[in-house]
Amino acid sequence: MSAIAKLPTPPYYAVIFSSERTEGDKGYGLMADKMVELASRQTGYLGIESARDEALGITVSYWASLESIKAWKDNAAHQVAQQRGKSEWYQSFALRISKVERDYYFDR
Amino acid sequence: MSAIAKLPTPPYYAVIFSSERTEGDKGYGLMADKMVELASRQTGYLGIESARDEALGITVSYWASLESIKAWKDNAAHQVAQQRGKSEWYQSFALRISKVERDYYFDR
Repeated sequence: MSAIAKLPTPPYYAVIFSSERTEGDKGYGLMADKMVELASRQTGYLGIESARDEALGITVSYWASLESIKAWKDNAAHQVAQQRGKSEWYQSFALRISKVERDYYFDR
Repeated sequence: MSAIAKLPTPPYYAVIFSSERTEGDKGYGLMADKMVELASRQTGYLGIESARDEALGITVSYWASLESIKAWKDNAAHQVAQQRGKSEWYQSFALRISKVERDYYFDR
């Protein structure tokens, strides 16, 4: 199965989350898996792509609307994870909310 | 130095490039470095973030305008790299052009 999300025709929204981790797992891996599972059951969720190496992690989640992004931000379990992200897991991060206007796929 | 791009106040544009590699390097690493260097000298270039693991690579480049993205797409050396990407380096990829409307930074 491909790690590339197959999405509907634009427009749709992308939340680009780029992060640098603190040292050690401290429960991060388990929570990350739980959040992906929970996000995927939200209204308006379209897909997710994620990659991490020593320097940086990038997770892009795709959503049907700004309202669905706001609802996910406000989700109670997600709020708990966001707090632990700031207090334990992330050295720094950037979050960018964008509207995808065009896309293009290539498959060999 | 942080791998997170520090960018001007939105709006700006993000090109989200998610890719699955073929086996072996085949000159990819060298060309990727050259393209980052070349892109950084283009008018309208704002920054780049990149992460790759076994499953997926995600590179997000940030631009001041759609015109600057188009000019980079049409750059002659970049065109050569794009062709080699399809013929040699990528099993599959998705390219998404999006307009960043809001961003948020966290730093410990």
